[in-house]
Amino acid sequence: MNSQIRQTDSQGRLRHFLSIEGFRREQLEQILDTAESFAMLPGRQVKKVPLLRGKIITNLFFENSTRTRTTFELAAKLLSADVINFNVNVSATAKGETLLDTLRNIEAMHSDMFVVRHQASGAAHFIARHAAPGVSVINAGDGRHAHPTQAMLDMFTIRRHKGDFTPLRVAIVGDIQHSRVARSQIMALNTLGVSEVRVIAPRTLLPAEARTLGVHVYHNLEQGLEDVDVIIMLRLQKERMEHALLPSEHEYFQLYGLTTERLRRAGPDAIVMHPGPINRGVEIASEVADGPQSVILQQVSYGIAVRMAVMSMALGATAGEAPS
Amino acid sequence: MNSQIRQTDSQGRLRHFLSIEGFRREQLEQILDTAESFAMLPGRQVKKVPLLRGKIITNLFFENSTRTRTTFELAAKLLSADVINFNVNVSATAKGETLLDTLRNIEAMHSDMFVVRHQASGAAHFIARHAAPGVSVINAGDGRHAHPTQAMLDMFTIRRHKGDFTPLRVAIVGDIQHSRVARSQIMALNTLGVSEVRVIAPRTLLPAEARTLGVHVYHNLEQGLEDVDVIIMLRLQKERMEHALLPSEHEYFQLYGLTTERLRRAGPDAIVMHPGPINRGVEIASEVADGPQSVILQQVSYGIAVRMAVMSMALGATAGEAPS
Amino acid sequence: MNSQIRQTDSQGRLRHFLSIEGFRREQLEQILDTAESFAMLPGRQVKKVPLLRGKIITNLFFENSTRTRTTFELAAKLLSADVINFNVNVSATAKGETLLDTLRNIEAMHSDMFVVRHQASGAAHFIARHAAPGVSVINAGDGRHAHPTQAMLDMFTIRRHKGDFTPLRVAIVGDIQHSRVARSQIMALNTLGVSEVRVIAPRTLLPAEARTLGVHVYHNLEQGLEDVDVIIMLRLQKERMEHALLPSEHEYFQLYGLTTERLRRAGPDAIVMHPGPINRGVEIASEVADGPQSVILQQVSYGIAVRMAVMSMALGATAGEAPS
Repeated sequence: MNSQIRQTDSQGRLRHFLSIEGFRREQLEQILDTAESFAMLPGRQVKKVPLLRGKIITNLFFENSTRTRTTFELAAKLLSADVINFNVNVSATAKGETLLDTLRNIEAMHSDMFVVRHQASGAAHFIARHAAPGVSVINAGDGRHAHPTQAMLDMFTIRRHKGDFTPLRVAIVGDIQHSRVARSQIMALNTLGVSEVRVIAPRTLLPAEARTLGVHVYHNLEQGLEDVDVIIMLRLQKERMEHALLPSEHEYFQLYGLTTERLRRAGPDAIVMHPGPINRGVEIASEVADGPQSVILQQVSYGIAVRMAVMSMALGATAGEAPS
Repeated sequence: MNSQIRQTDSQGRLRHFLSIEGFRREQLEQILDTAESFAMLPGRQVKKVPLLRGKIITNLFFENSTRTRTTFELAAKLLSADVINFNVNVSATAKGETLLDTLRNIEAMHSDMFVVRHQASGAAHFIARHAAPGVSVINAGDGRHAHPTQAMLDMFTIRRHKGDFTPLRVAIVGDIQHSRVARSQIMALNTLGVSEVRVIAPRTLLPAEARTLGVHVYHNLEQGLEDVDVIIMLRLQKERMEHALLPSEHEYFQLYGLTTERLRRAGPDAIVMHPGPINRGVEIASEVADGPQSVILQQVSYGIAVRMAVMSMALGATAGEAPS
Repeated sequence: MNSQIRQTDSQGRLRHFLSIEGFRREQLEQILDTAESFAMLPGRQVKKVPLLRGKIITNLFFENSTRTRTTFELAAKLLSADVINFNVNVSATAKGETLLDTLRNIEAMHSDMFVVRHQASGAAHFIARHAAPGVSVINAGDGRHAHPTQAMLDMFTIRRHKGDFTPLRVAIVGDIQHSRVARSQIMALNTLGVSEVRVIAPRTLLPAEARTLGVHVYHNLEQGLEDVDVIIMLRLQKERMEHALLPSEHEYFQLYGLTTERLRRAGPDAIVMHPGPINRGVEIASEVADGPQSVILQQVSYGIAVRMAVMSMALGATAGEAPS
């Protein structure tokens, strides 16, 4: 799908951020290091910096997602960029224009970066392929394919709590089949060299090619959680149940909901993550979501720093103070 | 409702602005004085000032109100803050997330201030109670409870035209029962020490506890207007008529519409106020709305200065040149 | 319609930009010269300039048009102005307020400039007539009346490719009857002194007064294109066909679609323009739209520079480096 698109330039510097695929370990670590330079200390705000002053960043959202759009808008404004929100649904495509014409038109308006959200897998690559030289594209979620900044904020959260990736056992629990986040996470975890990635899911929510992704597959939650250091819960899309892939919320929780009791199977210092919004009592019990091992809200905070890192790196403007 | 929330810190400095309740006269006067430092001279624009440079202000609107949102956005931008518009209806709550989870998530994105509009009374207090330390909350209207910046811009308008509050007789006319503005106005007028507050309304649009609010109640408009210095008309929500609380627009105007003739009952220099949008020929005659005693459009202008004052004070950044 | 509104002040400086009507040739050329100072070199971005720092520009859109709104927002931000997007449909008029009351209210919020889009002809003039002194109004399209910044970006595109207007033959092809762009283009071309303006349209899409506009009328596309230097295609509003003004898209293309073969009738260096979004295979063949004579995407880019020129001139802040 992305054979023709290079995400880095000839010097290995970030140009687009479309998927985790194709990045080496040092490159992902460089993103995490740069994010570190933006990350807030506990109780402190992220400080606005002038790195992208004068740059125009366009949020090109073909699919509504207020929360994701807002985190990118916030990250851009903290970098002193100007932000244009372009909701494509209400615009030109409604007038019968082709997608490519819409893109060419938006591009002719001269943005420095497009942050793209689209319901079709591969849309961000398509847009990057047709972007003018010097224009960066960031994938903010395309179909079931990828959501790389979400994966990187998860990696950042893990590194902040666990330090070294090498010895870690990580379990991803839930609807692997329909999750662009899970695909990106698995790739990032393997690239960063964790000891083991497990996926835990009912058979109906597991893609056929799961075993080729370099993961261990479990269908039993208790067994899968045994001794893990990191638990990543996925959001259950309630639409799935209507399509008979799942019996009921109640039954799902009985089998795959993360409860305090089940959490005891994991390592004593295991952290619990979730991309939000959480369905309390469906994929996770409230006492776990709000408990001492949950780092769910820190993920949201770290998301701003990680997006600032990716945006500033792709536009060639990094703080420079990031540790090598 | 707000027993646990302090709107000022231990030094008495503004932190949140949720309701007029709990503020002393000097504190309200300090807000008016600060607004004075921002207010435009006739024919002059408000000048942009760098007081909140680098701050992020999030408009958190659970209820659509383009006009109110715009005045806060404009005030924030004139203070050089960055503004994020977060419309909660179209976002997370639609995905089945609880309100508190939504709030915690938005908060984890690190805003310096939330401007909150919500259809439920007490929502702004709820959000302030759960906000991180250092994050300010401004109430932009919650249910029937309060709309304190609207009340303060009304006080500012009165002071600009009348100078001293002490000798004033003020009449509030219309749907007291359903008005968050009226509750805030009555409290502000009494705190600022006016001579007399009158409310004039049909029995069906008057709350049962009206007489406990420190006001004189009139059901006859002519009698109530006698010798007043300030007339505050409320907007008639047309929905009320459908619910049989009111006979018809025409009949309402016959009894409670402010006409030139009725205005003669008031003092010769009485000013006429209205929060907008006005219903011409329902609560007010066009010749009064557009007449020499009307200060309705000045209220809108002053609203920017008053919101700038509250925002900059709550974030600890005031111009300093305000008269004590 | 605009008898009472002067678009320039007593020194001839731009104040409003409502229609091409009333401007002299030198004035239009001054706009083009100023745009030249903002225009990007091939492969270069427009640079952000501080000319309108501290100014507030309000997009007042009564009719949805994401693309037009975005070009104005981008132009304003590249001039360092702050932008308020005020969508009037969802706001006050829904509450039963009159248009004039809405305007007065928005104006009382103190904007420096209104960019107005409205479905009624004359709306921008109406708003300019009621604007406070010192507030500028830019027409971003009103009914069938005018769309002057679109016309000026077309003139800019022509001048960039052809240099001198005097010897040019220009053909405008399509739905002249319903096009605000066509009216503005014809006026601008004649003011700038081109040799000949032709309009080519079926009889049903030509206004009765066409011959009074200083144009030559053709109903046959091949004949009309003979030896022209510039071809301006208009967008076909598909709604027209439902109203029986046109037989079918296919039949329209047979008679009035611009194909490679028909393009050969024009001069060998003729350029092809279109305001977008294009209907491929309806008014224009894909191979022409994407061919070497098409300057359609350059029009979009130049649109930013032209809007920057009009905005900065109307607010009295021009770069000064523009050639006289």
